[in-house]
Amino acid sequence: MVTQGQVIICKAAVAYEANKPLVIEDVEVAPPQAGEVRIKILYTALCHTDAYTWSGKDPEGLFPCILGHEAAGIVESVGEGVTEVQPGDHVIPCYQAECRECKFCKSGKTNLCGKVRAATGVGVMMNDRKSRFSIKGKPIYHFMGTSTFSQYTVVHDVSVAKINPQAPLEKVCLLGCGVPTGLGAVWNAAKVEAGSTVAVFGLGTVGLAVAEGAKAAGASRIIGIDIDSKKFDTAKNFGVTEFVNPKDHDKPIQQVIVDLTDGGVDYSFECIGNVSVMRAALECCHKGWGTSVIVGVAASGQEISTRPFQLVTGRVWKGTAFGGFKSRSQVPWLVDKYMNKEIKVDEYITHTMTLAEINKAFDLMHEGGCLRCVLALDA
Amino acid sequence: MVTQGQVIICKAAVAYEANKPLVIEDVEVAPPQAGEVRIKILYTALCHTDAYTWSGKDPEGLFPCILGHEAAGIVESVGEGVTEVQPGDHVIPCYQAECRECKFCKSGKTNLCGKVRAATGVGVMMNDRKSRFSIKGKPIYHFMGTSTFSQYTVVHDVSVAKINPQAPLEKVCLLGCGVPTGLGAVWNAAKVEAGSTVAVFGLGTVGLAVAEGAKAAGASRIIGIDIDSKKFDTAKNFGVTEFVNPKDHDKPIQQVIVDLTDGGVDYSFECIGNVSVMRAALECCHKGWGTSVIVGVAASGQEISTRPFQLVTGRVWKGTAFGGFKSRSQVPWLVDKYMNKEIKVDEYITHTMTLAEINKAFDLMHEGGCLRCVLALDA
Repeated sequence: MVTQGQVIICKAAVAYEANKPLVIEDVEVAPPQAGEVRIKILYTALCHTDAYTWSGKDPEGLFPCILGHEAAGIVESVGEGVTEVQPGDHVIPCYQAECRECKFCKSGKTNLCGKVRAATGVGVMMNDRKSRFSIKGKPIYHFMGTSTFSQYTVVHDVSVAKINPQAPLEKVCLLGCGVPTGLGAVWNAAKVEAGSTVAVFGLGTVGLAVAEGAKAAGASRIIGIDIDSKKFDTAKNFGVTEFVNPKDHDKPIQQVIVDLTDGGVDYSFECIGNVSVMRAALECCHKGWGTSVIVGVAASGQEISTRPFQLVTGRVWKGTAFGGFKSRSQVPWLVDKYMNKEIKVDEYITHTMTLAEINKAFDLMHEGGCLRCVLALDA
Repeated sequence: MVTQGQVIICKAAVAYEANKPLVIEDVEVAPPQAGEVRIKILYTALCHTDAYTWSGKDPEGLFPCILGHEAAGIVESVGEGVTEVQPGDHVIPCYQAECRECKFCKSGKTNLCGKVRAATGVGVMMNDRKSRFSIKGKPIYHFMGTSTFSQYTVVHDVSVAKINPQAPLEKVCLLGCGVPTGLGAVWNAAKVEAGSTVAVFGLGTVGLAVAEGAKAAGASRIIGIDIDSKKFDTAKNFGVTEFVNPKDHDKPIQQVIVDLTDGGVDYSFECIGNVSVMRAALECCHKGWGTSVIVGVAASGQEISTRPFQLVTGRVWKGTAFGGFKSRSQVPWLVDKYMNKEIKVDEYITHTMTLAEINKAFDLMHEGGCLRCVLALDA
């Protein structure tokens, strides 16, 4: 069947309204325009950022939309001028683009490419400022420039990482968000050195990837902090060496960690998105050099605070998005690392389902036992 | 006259109570004990930290005390075990010690030596947890481990920098605090590179030293921000290339700077101690890489805040004390740089007075035209 240049009608999970169950619909997916790529998504995972926007708390969230941003698939067709991928290429869509031309990409200091943000931030494509998705002609917004809860999606070419075709797509889809975010927070943002002490707040997928990254960097102590003690057994497998449940202590958690570590940790990571925990993560760092990295995404309007003395006495407060990885350049490298068994991926996948079960999958996310649930879109 | 081993009676300015004029008194200065050095202070400057503690807003401020921490003098005598300085050495007392033995000194990551802090923080000496100052036998507290508003003072040996005896003490006394704080914020904390854009909030001595440091580092634009437009002419001489007065704008100052610099500056420095300005300084930094350094000291209990998004999108928030310089090792190096005409010092001295005029000197500090006022203690 020739699909190139044609509208494709396929299944997608549509979020019509905040907090209302997603609806599996027949969606029309327009052909890619200049600089665009249409991808057959085979597997997508769910991430808390999807749930956040779906909840209605994201002031930039637009409805109706197709959520999803951690996925893998195969290029179906490409628009005019697209040279770096072609139909049949195995790819991971990247919500963080990499154009290699804008001042961000050229700076050598950040992965925050600005090329398509003006469009992806408002749910449309750059070329005509319109959506490629519709239902009976009525447009459905894109999400994060990826919209992977659909059997087909259209993304900008600067948002597509071409990967090793041998890689199992049902696994490496995770390299589109959570795992790189955690690994990169350690390797790129904090630059943890061998022998360091590390505190990880929140032991979901991102926190565990932080632990894994810290272990790979040679950290001597990796303290996992979570209010769900059941997570410790799993966390051990990712490198966590000690576990602290704030509920077991009367003292503020930063004081508990400072006492445990003779003055504080060398590096801390907030992987929850809670502004109080962000403060604790900073304040549990060692005077003189401790560095705290904000990885979690806080709800809109919330603010972090601390006494400036914390910084004047040598602590550093920073953050990271997508772990600082340059998406098109480095996601393929991460896939190769997985293929060489240098990083874990399979271990984060606790559940697999089909697109039809997506609402059940979101319910699972709020249960402690779920790390990543991967949906097969072909099934 | 043999003074070694004897109590010396000399003039000192005593702060009996918060906010009450300092009183010039005959003070008894006990001989140095083991690990201590008694210094004849020849010149001392005034700094805002003295004024802050004097104001009573510093919860750690103890009265009666002898303030002062930016000075130069000559060693009069040394206590048992002191090997690195001897009577006659020209020295600068350093409120930030450097013992070269504690975990901070050995870390290679910070200048915040912890060796004598437990004593200097509470106005006494380590050896016997007592003061070396008294008036008619009644103890007077030390301040910052330096107490330079006295013709003689006693400090820990780890707090004494031995300097080039050719250096004019009436000038290089400034290298005890403000000038190194500003230069080091640029060179050590921010590590400003050639071609960078820089914003400096507050054009007092520290802010001007930041400008000077940024110019030396090759910054392409140095934007000075102050609510007193009269400071611009002086600021130009220290490297400021553009001047912004927040009072001339309706927009928040961070937005003014972002607009001026196509997205924000590479580095910003807060040299005031105002927590709202600290926020503005962070938020005027460029997304992806902008680094803001807190140099000013905020009043106790005040907090800084911002949206975590500012950090997640690549800004870095840090601070510095004494510009990150290792005091005993690097103050002599700064003195040499001054002697080689590589850094300014004379230009910060706007007034000279005698110890008897110290209250007048403090009044001057609150006037825009005063940078540093140096008191001659011998006069």
